[in-house]
Amino acid sequence: MAKDYDVVILGAGPGGYVAAIRAAQLGMKVAIVEKQYWGGICLNVGCIPSKALLRNAELAHIVTHRAKDFGFTFGTVELDYTVAFKRSRQASDRLTKGVGFLMRKNKIDTYDGWGSFTGPKSLDVALNNGGTETLNFKNCILATGAKTRMLPGVQVTKRIKTYLEYVMADKLPKSIVIVGGGAIGVEFGYVMNAYGVDVSIVEFMPTIIPLEDEEVSKELEKQYVKLGVKIHAGTKVEKIDENDAGVKVSISKDGKTQVLEAEEVLVAIGWQPRTEGYGLEKTGVKLNERGWIAVNEKMETNVPGIYAIGDCTGNLLLAHVASHMGIIAAENMAKHPTVTINYKMMPRCTYCQPQVASFGYTEKEAREKGYEVKSAKFPWQANGKALGLGDTVGFVKIISDAKHGEILGAHLIGPEVTELLPELTLAQMWELTPEEIARNVHAHPTLSEALMEAAEGLEGEMINL
Amino acid sequence: MAKDYDVVILGAGPGGYVAAIRAAQLGMKVAIVEKQYWGGICLNVGCIPSKALLRNAELAHIVTHRAKDFGFTFGTVELDYTVAFKRSRQASDRLTKGVGFLMRKNKIDTYDGWGSFTGPKSLDVALNNGGTETLNFKNCILATGAKTRMLPGVQVTKRIKTYLEYVMADKLPKSIVIVGGGAIGVEFGYVMNAYGVDVSIVEFMPTIIPLEDEEVSKELEKQYVKLGVKIHAGTKVEKIDENDAGVKVSISKDGKTQVLEAEEVLVAIGWQPRTEGYGLEKTGVKLNERGWIAVNEKMETNVPGIYAIGDCTGNLLLAHVASHMGIIAAENMAKHPTVTINYKMMPRCTYCQPQVASFGYTEKEAREKGYEVKSAKFPWQANGKALGLGDTVGFVKIISDAKHGEILGAHLIGPEVTELLPELTLAQMWELTPEEIARNVHAHPTLSEALMEAAEGLEGEMINL
Repeated sequence: MAKDYDVVILGAGPGGYVAAIRAAQLGMKVAIVEKQYWGGICLNVGCIPSKALLRNAELAHIVTHRAKDFGFTFGTVELDYTVAFKRSRQASDRLTKGVGFLMRKNKIDTYDGWGSFTGPKSLDVALNNGGTETLNFKNCILATGAKTRMLPGVQVTKRIKTYLEYVMADKLPKSIVIVGGGAIGVEFGYVMNAYGVDVSIVEFMPTIIPLEDEEVSKELEKQYVKLGVKIHAGTKVEKIDENDAGVKVSISKDGKTQVLEAEEVLVAIGWQPRTEGYGLEKTGVKLNERGWIAVNEKMETNVPGIYAIGDCTGNLLLAHVASHMGIIAAENMAKHPTVTINYKMMPRCTYCQPQVASFGYTEKEAREKGYEVKSAKFPWQANGKALGLGDTVGFVKIISDAKHGEILGAHLIGPEVTELLPELTLAQMWELTPEEIARNVHAHPTLSEALMEAAEGLEGEMINL
Repeated sequence: MAKDYDVVILGAGPGGYVAAIRAAQLGMKVAIVEKQYWGGICLNVGCIPSKALLRNAELAHIVTHRAKDFGFTFGTVELDYTVAFKRSRQASDRLTKGVGFLMRKNKIDTYDGWGSFTGPKSLDVALNNGGTETLNFKNCILATGAKTRMLPGVQVTKRIKTYLEYVMADKLPKSIVIVGGGAIGVEFGYVMNAYGVDVSIVEFMPTIIPLEDEEVSKELEKQYVKLGVKIHAGTKVEKIDENDAGVKVSISKDGKTQVLEAEEVLVAIGWQPRTEGYGLEKTGVKLNERGWIAVNEKMETNVPGIYAIGDCTGNLLLAHVASHMGIIAAENMAKHPTVTINYKMMPRCTYCQPQVASFGYTEKEAREKGYEVKSAKFPWQANGKALGLGDTVGFVKIISDAKHGEILGAHLIGPEVTELLPELTLAQMWELTPEEIARNVHAHPTLSEALMEAAEGLEGEMINL
């Protein structure tokens, strides 16, 4: 017999499961359908396990390369990657079980299976246990996510893999070519380098992490070269040949070609929408020209009562953006006060060492937008806490509009910078000025003092530089 | 011949040197007088070198006690404390040299020597090189700091020491009794424990870090006991006997006495004003009943043109508070727009592991003040980044006033919490509400998400708990 819900959510990633909780908090009767990954790619095979691997890598690098700086002498050092892998699975398992707990706590009905629309107000779930359920809904939220984009003509094989195979692998190859120098490429590159893998990164754009401010990208590239990672930026992958011994990756730059040999290849060039097999055509939901689901600022699709959030909309493929889209969708559905998202101002983090964190416009983008740009940069070299940590690479840069003092963006590279953004994004969101940040007393000695110094710099009055 | 200045500053700690820079930025002719420590206790023998030692200790603890969790096997592990010490001196030297650079850059005249007032508008400097200088001033800032308070009848000896002797020591005793469980006591306790010293901490108040929220103090005590540190809280030191073999510390609790034996004692029970020998009596500057220099919210003493800032005023003895008092003093002197300090809302950090960070009222204080208190707590156990790091001890607690939603304080214990306060203090300072913090999109996965969750909790709508 069909079941009736105020809202049915397709996909239990960080968009879907958060939307479900918010909808339940607002008094709706909620169902959520998920075939495989409660908590999505993020909790199962993405952000969470990868951050456990990155912590292992950070410590592995210290014990193998920096022990002397700290006065540690080890008779021998053995790094067992299988333990790193197990630790990453434990972190993931703990959180994915947490999602189950949260669904029960919020009285959300869960369906393990695949949902396909039968019309704009109903769908059938092919349950993993072989059964079928029919769900009728007043509202629906599409939170179906995205899947890895591959190079044209390239398939996943024994030697050509994606993030997914590596995050689930308990051992690493001896050498690797990583195609794509975005966040996933540089994060896996960092982990593998720390565990002794010979790593080459090939990036089509002129720098690795090409969406970041140019100075940040260049600083990270410099640090990766110091680690022994080979960087091929501004370089195209022409073809990948595979044989029993390994892979040969043909690359070209400025008309010159070169062949990189390695044991394996990681393809990390981006994402494509996951919209097939859900019977979307039965609903009339429109996709945009690039195949993502088109939504307005309320997260509504063109079909009344059907919303979409997260990666499947193609709007910044980041877990925390998906979660907030989920909250906004649920609040709009419930006619509860809500906000809108300024995608440009969303925080963006890359968790290699040094870490990279940013939001807003890069200097170049801001100038192109016509802003009269002010920029202030404070180096970790001049920060007491960074000196104490022994991590003084990088800087904090904040940019503002010279006319009105509006914060336009911030670009950070260095120790723990992924934890330093919230003060700046809070200020940006609620229209506080650099002067108001400068007046916020920051504890000494902390890394966060660098934000205060940069904010003072925008007012023309940096103290410690 | 006497030299004339707009402002002469006595003492080049984080209060004095920052005041000098701000005064110079505002166009004043500035002199600063310092006998020994450019950068003060903080940069020379306090915050900065101790944070370098704490980083060493954090890593030492990981390699000796947690290597297995990360899959690291070491044939042998040797920890050379002399290297930790040298690293701490390098961090200190680098920053103290930086102070010299900043003075030159800002065209501030520096005098290496001891200043004594000859009247309310002049002082003589007995230079370290044997000479004398007479300085006339329109304004003066007293930034003379504080000195260690000792137990009644106890002197520094070969075996009874203060933070100063330990921060400058390149080796550690085998066992120690630390008298005083405040920030200095628990920080040195952490460093020494990590380097294998048998540590006992005796605290007169009912818990260690007694000024913190009770739940935080109890959590830290629990973690210290796990580390093997012996905690004697609610305990009085009756006497300390010293002989060639070591010390015997007689302690009493609830009428029962006990004798702790150890190689040495660290006394860390607090501070007293450093106001003697400056000829203050020639100026007419008044001290308060506890001997600190009394100031108003402009940092003015009772004598026109004479200001005081930092530890010598007894207002929260913290480096960052001193710096901001310095900025405020300089700005008032220059009749430049400025702010006032709400001492209750200043951030406070303790850099052991787990770290402790707080500002504002504890729950108990807020209730005693008559607030209708709301409190929301998010544990690191439920935070993905903390799980990835493998550091899940502790929590974030934010308290607010139920009537108006005003943020009253926050109490954090756990990984990197010293870096998480600025978002909350910014919100408190500029009167943003918990809801406005909850609407700030926090990158996933970060520790900072716990702040957002706690803020959502204050609104009754936590997502991930």
